[in-house]
Amino acid sequence: MQTIITSKTREVVISDTGPTILIGERINPTGKKRLQAELLAGRLDLVRQEAVQQVEAGADILDVNVGATGVDEVAVLPEAVKAIMQVTDVPLCLDSSNPRALEAALKVYEGRALVNSVTAEEASLTDILPLVKEHGCAVIGLTMDEKGIPRDAGRRVELAHYLVDRATRIGIPRQDIVIDCLNMPVAASTDGAGPLIEAIIEVRSQLGLNMTIGASNISFGLPDRDLLNTVFLSFAIQIGVTCPVVDVAKVRKYALAADALLGKDPHMRRFIHDFRTRQKQA
Amino acid sequence: MQTIITSKTREVVISDTGPTILIGERINPTGKKRLQAELLAGRLDLVRQEAVQQVEAGADILDVNVGATGVDEVAVLPEAVKAIMQVTDVPLCLDSSNPRALEAALKVYEGRALVNSVTAEEASLTDILPLVKEHGCAVIGLTMDEKGIPRDAGRRVELAHYLVDRATRIGIPRQDIVIDCLNMPVAASTDGAGPLIEAIIEVRSQLGLNMTIGASNISFGLPDRDLLNTVFLSFAIQIGVTCPVVDVAKVRKYALAADALLGKDPHMRRFIHDFRTRQKQA
Repeated sequence: MQTIITSKTREVVISDTGPTILIGERINPTGKKRLQAELLAGRLDLVRQEAVQQVEAGADILDVNVGATGVDEVAVLPEAVKAIMQVTDVPLCLDSSNPRALEAALKVYEGRALVNSVTAEEASLTDILPLVKEHGCAVIGLTMDEKGIPRDAGRRVELAHYLVDRATRIGIPRQDIVIDCLNMPVAASTDGAGPLIEAIIEVRSQLGLNMTIGASNISFGLPDRDLLNTVFLSFAIQIGVTCPVVDVAKVRKYALAADALLGKDPHMRRFIHDFRTRQKQA
Repeated sequence: MQTIITSKTREVVISDTGPTILIGERINPTGKKRLQAELLAGRLDLVRQEAVQQVEAGADILDVNVGATGVDEVAVLPEAVKAIMQVTDVPLCLDSSNPRALEAALKVYEGRALVNSVTAEEASLTDILPLVKEHGCAVIGLTMDEKGIPRDAGRRVELAHYLVDRATRIGIPRQDIVIDCLNMPVAASTDGAGPLIEAIIEVRSQLGLNMTIGASNISFGLPDRDLLNTVFLSFAIQIGVTCPVVDVAKVRKYALAADALLGKDPHMRRFIHDFRTRQKQA
């Protein structure tokens, strides 16, 4: 199953046979006071800077999220998208739960965006899916509904089926739906990431869709978060997550190692090239 | 399924619910000229030193291999075992393909050893299994036969069944059989570790046994071997390898992170303790 995301000049193919596609997570003000302040003041310098740095670090797609208290997403999201398109040419993932902000961003985006995201909540389905259909883009479906994120794997799998049903019913092709089974901090759980892993394996096996996951939340509240995040990323890639949302500079080498081990990097060309590049920089 | 390995004073339980058990790989002269020279000269200082260092690094079990050109394993293996028992109290994994060397080592070993290994070759089954039965110990079964290591997963799974059949037929309990699906360098393959991973998942699912794997060979011939080995170890633990053979000092923190994520470390106690210990040492 191939999901194709484009910018004006580039095409990124997400699939289970090709390389793992890394979606850069850093354009997101959550927990970042300086970025929050800039966005509130209507400045986009830091957004541009994060965009350039993530692309230099090897990001394939950039997530763009400007949601913070006091920020008018409907005004700022399209401005951020325009600013990023001026400094990079990688495709974008438009990240908001506000349908009007997504609509405004889709109008200015030059290419086939990945919309992040729709949930199985009725309001979200009603607002977001027609936008995705109208713009012919792709969408990330989150396995959560009005009751929140289910704790068990089975219910998340049901929600994934439901999201696909609802999207395909209005004419969105299956391959344009990417499922996110939603990470929760393992510190709050007794069975670790077990239910999440089970959900990813089942959705992948039953629906065959491309899968994403935010690979940084899992370690919230624990020490040595980078270590936990990289090990979790290895898990995720192994079980079929094809386009994780990550801190690219920190984890790209682990993703390349995973691809090399899983036969997703013929002759280990990307792995060896990255190794040599890192050696030169060191 | 629990496999219990003991020394005179310690018991190690290998199971899929408990922590990942790390078998230290470093007492092995393959590729180590200094250790080869010492063993040829009948000296065991380096063996003692490697034993102590691996236990300090957190090894749960130590693999003991003295096989090198010119070394009389029948004489040296029991001497090495005695030397190691003098300096540490962790249980041992007696590693030789020579049945007489294993017999001599089992005679001097105080505890319930893990024998490494028996293969599905008739000569190996005939020589090794009765020894395991006689000493009431546990054994690692390698999924290879007279034709070598099968390339495909299916044949490895068949060989695992065959090993279990042959062992249980002479009265070795199922829980005392640990399966090793055998790592091969991914550099020599076009589909990476795919067949190996598939074999491990299937053996685990069909037989429910404890599983080991050598986690360092996979990167042979490639750069940045430690990176590849640690990512492979994450894969292995996730799919059910319960007692990998590893360079403990290099990979223990990754194994602890994997256990924490997989719900095999209640309240992340071991992970957090290890993090604090590493911080103090830094």
